[in-house]
Amino acid sequence: MEISARNTFKGTVKEIVTGSVNDEITLEIAPGVEVTAVITKTSAESLGLKEGKEAYAIIKASDVMVSVD
Amino acid sequence: MEISARNTFKGTVKEIVTGSVNDEITLEIAPGVEVTAVITKTSAESLGLKEGKEAYAIIKASDVMVSVD
Amino acid sequence: MEISARNTFKGTVKEIVTGSVNDEITLEIAPGVEVTAVITKTSAESLGLKEGKEAYAIIKASDVMVSVD
Amino acid sequence: MEISARNTFKGTVKEIVTGSVNDEITLEIAPGVEVTAVITKTSAESLGLKEGKEAYAIIKASDVMVSVD
Amino acid sequence: MEISARNTFKGTVKEIVTGSVNDEITLEIAPGVEVTAVITKTSAESLGLKEGKEAYAIIKASDVMVSVD
Amino acid sequence: MEISARNTFKGTVKEIVTGSVNDEITLEIAPGVEVTAVITKTSAESLGLKEGKEAYAIIKASDVMVSVD
Repeated sequence: MEISARNTFKGTVKEIVTGSVNDEITLEIAPGVEVTAVITKTSAESLGLKEGKEAYAIIKASDVMVSVD
Repeated sequence: MEISARNTFKGTVKEIVTGSVNDEITLEIAPGVEVTAVITKTSAESLGLKEGKEAYAIIKASDVMVSVD
Repeated sequence: MEISARNTFKGTVKEIVTGSVNDEITLEIAPGVEVTAVITKTSAESLGLKEGKEAYAIIKASDVMVSVD
Repeated sequence: MEISARNTFKGTVKEIVTGSVNDEITLEIAPGVEVTAVITKTSAESLGLKEGKEAYAIIKASDVMVSVD
Repeated sequence: MEISARNTFKGTVKEIVTGSVNDEITLEIAPGVEVTAVITKTSAESLGLKEGKEAYAIIKASDVMVSVD
Repeated sequence: MEISARNTFKGTVKEIVTGSVNDEITLEIAPGVEVTAVITKTSAESLGLKEGKEAYAIIKASDVMVSVD
C-alpha cells in the first residue's frame, strides 16, 4: 500500500502510555530522535504495538508546522 | 516560547515549492531524513524561509499515525 | 501495511482538481457517496491517481467531528 | 448552518466508548460502513449522543489521505 | 445543527486570498482579533463568502495547541 | 521563536480537565471568549499549566473551518 501522507519514519516503539480511549506511543526513529503519537487504544492493540517492536510514524504534510528562532 | 506540540525537529530548508495560497517546505532533519510541510505562503514569507536556512518542523502528537508492516 | 487511522474507505477516483501545491481528489466510495481529499500534488502524482482508478480514503479518528440536527 | 468541511455523512450512533477527556463514537453511515470519531466527552454529552441516535460525521478535506494498493 | 467542535467564533470576513484549490479566509472575530482559515475554493464559493459577510470560524479542540512564554 | 501557525491568541488558563493521556485546557482569550484545547497530559505538565496562568492558544490555518448561517 502506498499512502499520500508525505512523511514516514521507520522506528522502534520505545514507550506506550495507556489511556481509556487514546494511547500515547513514542517511537525512536534515529539515535536520540523520538516521535510521539496519540492514537486510539483500539488501534494500538490492533497493531500489536509493544516496546521494542518495529513501527512507522506517518504524518500528513498539512499537519506539519515550521518555526525559526 | 515553549509549545505543547510534542514533536520538534531541527533541520535545514532543502526545497520550497511555491503556490498561490500554500507553499510546500522540505526540511532535512538528519542526513537523508526529510520532513515536508505545507504552510501558507504568507507564513513562509513571514518566517523568511529560503534554501539552506535553519528551521524546525513542529508536529502535534494527535496528528501522528502509526503503522506496522 | 496496517495503519492506526481508524477509517478506510475503498472507492474510485471521480474527479481531480489540480493546483500548484495541492490537488483536490474526489472518491466515490458507494453509489452517490463521495469523499473529498486535499493532498499534495506530488503525492497525487506519485500515487498515479487518475479518474476511474481504485483508491482508498484514509482518515484519523481524531479528525472526525460529529453533529446532530 | 452550512460549513466549509467538504465531507458530511449521515448515520446512526452504533457504539460509544467513554474516556476521561475524550469519547470514541462509531457511526454506521451505510450498511456495514462505519466511521469512528474521537471527540471530547463534553461534546458527546452536549450533543446527547447515545446508541441508535441519528448523527453526522463531518471531516475537513485537508484531513483526508488517499492510498492505493 | 450542533457540532462537536468546541470552538466557534462569530466574525466578519475581512480578506479572501484566492488560490487554485484552496482559498485563505481571514475573519475579524473581535476588534483587532483575526482568525485565518484555509479551506477549499469550492467551499468558499459554496458558502458565498465575500468581504463584509458574517461568518463563523470553527476549530476542533484537538487541533488547538498551547504555549507559554 | 516564530511559528508558521497563523493563529495565536493570548489568554489565561481558566480550567483544566485531567485525563490519563490527554488533558483539556480552556483559555479565556477575551472577556467571555474561550478557546478549548486537547493536548497531552505530558505537555500540560511540562508547560506548568494551572488556572490563572497566562498562555497562548495556537492554531494552524488549515485546521480552521468556516460556516455561515
